[in-house]
Amino acid sequence: MKTFNQLSTEEKNQLKQDLDQRYESFRSQNLSLNMTRGVPSPEQLDLSMDLLTCVSSNYRTENGIDCRNYGGVDGIPEAKRLFAEYMGVSTDEIIVGGNSSLTLMHDTFMRAMIKGIDADNPPWSQQGKIKFICPAPGYDRHFSICNYLNIEMITVEMTDDGLNMDEIESLVAEDNTIKGIWCVPKYSNPTGITYSDDVVERLAAMKTSASDFRIFLDNAYAVHDHTDTPDILMPVLDACRRAGNPDRVYMFGSTAKITFAGAGVSCMAASKANIDWIRSQMIFQSIGPDKINQLRHVIFFKNLDGLYQLMRKHAKILKPKFEAIQNVLNRELGALEIAQWTNPRGGYFVSVNTPEGCAKEVVAMTKKAGVMFTPAGATYPYQNDPMNRNIRLAPSFPPVADIEKATELLAICIQRVALDKMQ
Amino acid sequence: MKTFNQLSTEEKNQLKQDLDQRYESFRSQNLSLNMTRGVPSPEQLDLSMDLLTCVSSNYRTENGIDCRNYGGVDGIPEAKRLFAEYMGVSTDEIIVGGNSSLTLMHDTFMRAMIKGIDADNPPWSQQGKIKFICPAPGYDRHFSICNYLNIEMITVEMTDDGLNMDEIESLVAEDNTIKGIWCVPKYSNPTGITYSDDVVERLAAMKTSASDFRIFLDNAYAVHDHTDTPDILMPVLDACRRAGNPDRVYMFGSTAKITFAGAGVSCMAASKANIDWIRSQMIFQSIGPDKINQLRHVIFFKNLDGLYQLMRKHAKILKPKFEAIQNVLNRELGALEIAQWTNPRGGYFVSVNTPEGCAKEVVAMTKKAGVMFTPAGATYPYQNDPMNRNIRLAPSFPPVADIEKATELLAICIQRVALDKMQ
Repeated sequence: MKTFNQLSTEEKNQLKQDLDQRYESFRSQNLSLNMTRGVPSPEQLDLSMDLLTCVSSNYRTENGIDCRNYGGVDGIPEAKRLFAEYMGVSTDEIIVGGNSSLTLMHDTFMRAMIKGIDADNPPWSQQGKIKFICPAPGYDRHFSICNYLNIEMITVEMTDDGLNMDEIESLVAEDNTIKGIWCVPKYSNPTGITYSDDVVERLAAMKTSASDFRIFLDNAYAVHDHTDTPDILMPVLDACRRAGNPDRVYMFGSTAKITFAGAGVSCMAASKANIDWIRSQMIFQSIGPDKINQLRHVIFFKNLDGLYQLMRKHAKILKPKFEAIQNVLNRELGALEIAQWTNPRGGYFVSVNTPEGCAKEVVAMTKKAGVMFTPAGATYPYQNDPMNRNIRLAPSFPPVADIEKATELLAICIQRVALDKMQ
Repeated sequence: MKTFNQLSTEEKNQLKQDLDQRYESFRSQNLSLNMTRGVPSPEQLDLSMDLLTCVSSNYRTENGIDCRNYGGVDGIPEAKRLFAEYMGVSTDEIIVGGNSSLTLMHDTFMRAMIKGIDADNPPWSQQGKIKFICPAPGYDRHFSICNYLNIEMITVEMTDDGLNMDEIESLVAEDNTIKGIWCVPKYSNPTGITYSDDVVERLAAMKTSASDFRIFLDNAYAVHDHTDTPDILMPVLDACRRAGNPDRVYMFGSTAKITFAGAGVSCMAASKANIDWIRSQMIFQSIGPDKINQLRHVIFFKNLDGLYQLMRKHAKILKPKFEAIQNVLNRELGALEIAQWTNPRGGYFVSVNTPEGCAKEVVAMTKKAGVMFTPAGATYPYQNDPMNRNIRLAPSFPPVADIEKATELLAICIQRVALDKMQ
């Protein structure tokens, strides 16, 4: 088979005709498919139904605390122990919170804005213009927090082993208004990349001009492997400690994609100094998280092994969906050399790069045929993909048949738009 | 019986001896009683046990939303309807949140600090020194938020019908750095006072020099009546609307003292303009509250009448506890005219005023005998009760026998300290 560039004018015209015909055939189906967000499917949620009823009369913690009542701002003891193990930290390096790790991240920004990241540094909001490094493509809700707080975002393109550390090291060494970086270190949203050991060690060790620089490490897919040979992330807090920067990283996690997306448990891990600083301010915000829901999770998981077993059940549901994408993209685009896509071993997304300048038009075209993908550009700060090429596929929710249809349509639209652009 | 001032020196000496003896007898009991915080008792929490298991396979909202999954930043439809009715507002004037109304209040401050209270006013954090009016005695966690944010607190003494409106009107008319006021309008913490209609109307109508002035109205005890003739609070948002200041008030509520203190549902009500402004920022903080827990509450209550029925059960448990305090204080101090205390028809607290300059010593003295009351001063901004006289009693948690003991000890200590001070 020929690559796209090898096609003659005649062949291109023929292909265009074929594609138009196939596109019209999709349109006539009146599809309404949604591949926009990384939400678990009902079958995945069904795996955790026991969570709903596993706490009834057994509402006390191991040390006798009545979870129905007030108190315990940083979580119940057994949840702190379980999630400390999950995050690879000790129990004085963790806070277990409510149902949303996004809330923990957002609130950590708000406190940094108002109070600074420790007692020695001024509040971020009192330092004039500040900036954040945003590896991209990345997670739109991370970028939204920066945008909301008028924090200037510096886009750094993701590489195959995670981050362009040369560029990042040089940026943070020179500019003391750069206060941090967003990271999704494992099965990154949307590229599926896991940071190499070298990337982790350089992040931990790099010289930062700002004395109040922080890594916001959203480890949302820490155990979200699809295979038996999962990616392994070097423990980041340990790396920071070895590099002499123990306070550099805030790590976030949640069970949103383990139990219930809307009713899980979130956690935040960091050095004891960071945790103490944050806990000392959380007491003004809450008398404590929902302890019953934390207890539900501990009872439901039993232990970390129970959580891993659950993740294997998720993998069984997710794997065919990711395989469907690969199969269709390989079949439709494999020989053409006009698009690249990731084939992650875990996480919730596949990242597709169209030819430059095509992504917006492709997504608009699939939308007209009833298939919604994440808006082109959404994976970049300011919704601005400078090459207008990245499209995020989120296959977790729809059934396999729908994913196959949606991906086929995507492949048709990529070719059709590319044909116009490249003529 | 004589009043305290009518006692002869000899009688005072005799009383001192008696009190010392009684105090020693208390000390010898090695008591360990806690009357510090307004936490529900286990019997109260037991009233809501059905909440724990009332959602299992029925996890969908009335409009088919899967509560296990992501979404719905301002609450599920049926919860918004129920809590709108509870707060006396419409469904576009309410946000239903997580387990803590303190969080809603704190976060509203944080947003006001960073973004201002609307699009027309600058952020509070960019206006130099700002101030808040803090009616006192009041709730320490309200004052803590101001203190945390370096908002200067202006103490205004509570009156018998709620607020000293002459003083408040004059303050807010003159000083545009006063950005708001804390209010607990019904069964106020700790005085038990409910604002009169006149107070509500003047709060709603008063001229404020600041264009970004807000009432933070913590209606924590809205339905927490102990009697069949409850206090009735004039609807505050309606009053603000009538006065032409529809955006003046943020109202907060929660089921912390209706169902589970640690695992309830919170809500915030305000004008549609306020709610829209806040919701537009909440989307950066969360993909949604715990919708399952909201659904649990709707199913458990059935409707507002179900909630009221539950409150009558709470009243049955709480009433004897509040009566115990009145009985003991009347018996021990009734004739002496050295202390005043409130006799609220609802809420969670009794407020005691000792003779001036005695409160700290009284609380220290009860503590030495094993009975903890809320630290003296805690009910005032900066923990500074200028008359050092206010003590908050929180009788909800301990059993009646313990409350009787603790209150008797308190009465002994008040007399004993007063004897020393007044000689």
